[in-house]
Amino acid sequence: MDWQRVISEARARIAGNVRCTPVATVRFGTRDVRFKFEQMQVTGSFKARGAFNTLMQAEVPQAGIVAASGGNHGAAVAHAAATLGHRARIYVPQIAGPAKIALIRAQGADLQVVPGAYAEAAAHAAEWQAATGAIQVHPYDAEATIAGQGTVMAEWEDQGLDADTVLIAVGGGGLIAGALGWLQGRRKVVAVEPQTSCALHAALQAGAPVDVEVSGIAANALGARRIGETCLGLARAQGIESVRVSDTAIAQAQAMLWRELRQLVEPAGATALAALLSGAYTPAEGERVAVLICGGNVAPDPLDSLSQPG
Amino acid sequence: MDWQRVISEARARIAGNVRCTPVATVRFGTRDVRFKFEQMQVTGSFKARGAFNTLMQAEVPQAGIVAASGGNHGAAVAHAAATLGHRARIYVPQIAGPAKIALIRAQGADLQVVPGAYAEAAAHAAEWQAATGAIQVHPYDAEATIAGQGTVMAEWEDQGLDADTVLIAVGGGGLIAGALGWLQGRRKVVAVEPQTSCALHAALQAGAPVDVEVSGIAANALGARRIGETCLGLARAQGIESVRVSDTAIAQAQAMLWRELRQLVEPAGATALAALLSGAYTPAEGERVAVLICGGNVAPDPLDSLSQPG
Repeated sequence: MDWQRVISEARARIAGNVRCTPVATVRFGTRDVRFKFEQMQVTGSFKARGAFNTLMQAEVPQAGIVAASGGNHGAAVAHAAATLGHRARIYVPQIAGPAKIALIRAQGADLQVVPGAYAEAAAHAAEWQAATGAIQVHPYDAEATIAGQGTVMAEWEDQGLDADTVLIAVGGGGLIAGALGWLQGRRKVVAVEPQTSCALHAALQAGAPVDVEVSGIAANALGARRIGETCLGLARAQGIESVRVSDTAIAQAQAMLWRELRQLVEPAGATALAALLSGAYTPAEGERVAVLICGGNVAPDPLDSLSQPG
Repeated sequence: MDWQRVISEARARIAGNVRCTPVATVRFGTRDVRFKFEQMQVTGSFKARGAFNTLMQAEVPQAGIVAASGGNHGAAVAHAAATLGHRARIYVPQIAGPAKIALIRAQGADLQVVPGAYAEAAAHAAEWQAATGAIQVHPYDAEATIAGQGTVMAEWEDQGLDADTVLIAVGGGGLIAGALGWLQGRRKVVAVEPQTSCALHAALQAGAPVDVEVSGIAANALGARRIGETCLGLARAQGIESVRVSDTAIAQAQAMLWRELRQLVEPAGATALAALLSGAYTPAEGERVAVLICGGNVAPDPLDSLSQPG
């Protein structure tokens, strides 16, 4: 697979529908950290990139599109489908939470909330696909999805990224697979997973994808039960470093992003930074590090508690 | 006054203590809006620039520093003083609200909360200055303050700002004075004030600074009773456009910044965008507009309601 080519093509394809998200270098303690604020992407996460890249090259049948999602992917697919004039049916598990469910509903999709976690929603989506002929947009383990997510890193390099090492949160592995596909070993990539939801870490240890239990504060975004095959292949070929962080470390990073930067992000969006702040990943002397902030769909919706006029 | 020179000098002076804040171009409806996210500045507003520029060239007496502030300026002065090793006494009015008061306290200042609005805090600060010999950092009407705030626009131009027109929220006028001083008429500047707190608008109509009543959701940041003389002079010389927005429009812009961009900002931070979204300012066909987001110290502290691990 020529990932650099498909990612470059994806970037040109989706340019009119996604944002170039901002970057900044911020001093944290004694270290400069390069951030990319991908939570400012359309629908609040990087998922819009893969969704548009998939749908803009798909032949969409009358039955439309179906997706299963812990929330962010569903919002992205629903938004991309609406933008492109397609019907979309989105299955989300209850753990997605009210803020993400409201976000998907706001995109105008046919929304189905099902009990359980992501795997249950995926089973429903597969049934619907088989019954109707709708096409499914896979959240992480499909070439078009990964190529779309890879545009984050291509864009970041164009913005002058000056880092030796990039820390990226991992759920099913679409985002990091895109980064690995783009970088081809030119920079070190550190995969950061919650201790309670670490499908990549488990697969790297087992030498093959294995099912893991998922829970914790980032589970609706990072709680894939099994890592994507493509991600695992790229991760093994390139020898990435895999680290895990506690829910407490994630919550502390989330608080730090607000206190220091006025960025309110969801737990998954703070997970990569948690590795740095907690010491789960310790850079070498002089190592220049970058942290990808990947999602901002926090619960509860902060607008609910804002002071209102009057 | 050679504003471009003093702003360039300020920029070199404060570079090690403030951040280069990120920029992005975002499509809102049918229009591209260029944003600068200055609420990501140290202490959550542009005020850190003027505070560092003032204190880094001042001879600070044993009695230290005193400032009066609706919140953001106080946090910035307290932070700059602590960074530079000086004592700081900060007077804030109760309308600053608990989130800003906690922010100032966290900087380690000697904090005095007084009844009323900004003017009452300013009276206390003047008394303290007279009694102790502490030096005062003026929040908006002093050359060093304005030169510091002017670094926002200098930096933005270096980041490739491609706008004909820049919308800026106005309280006492330090930020917009710095922008006018830097730009020298090279771009159109639109001053945006709340209807309930519009010292610049009133002064432009009267031909001189006049006292106004201040209230509304942005009052703790924009509620100066009287516009700064320097700001008024620059505004009259350069013929800026002055517009006003309702609290409802400000709250709608604040909600839009969260829904579209996952940026949670205080009402003052959303005030410039409110002019564009409400139609208080309508760009001409093809006019390229930019909006400065100036502060993010929202109340209540959103960390208070986040889902926690456990």
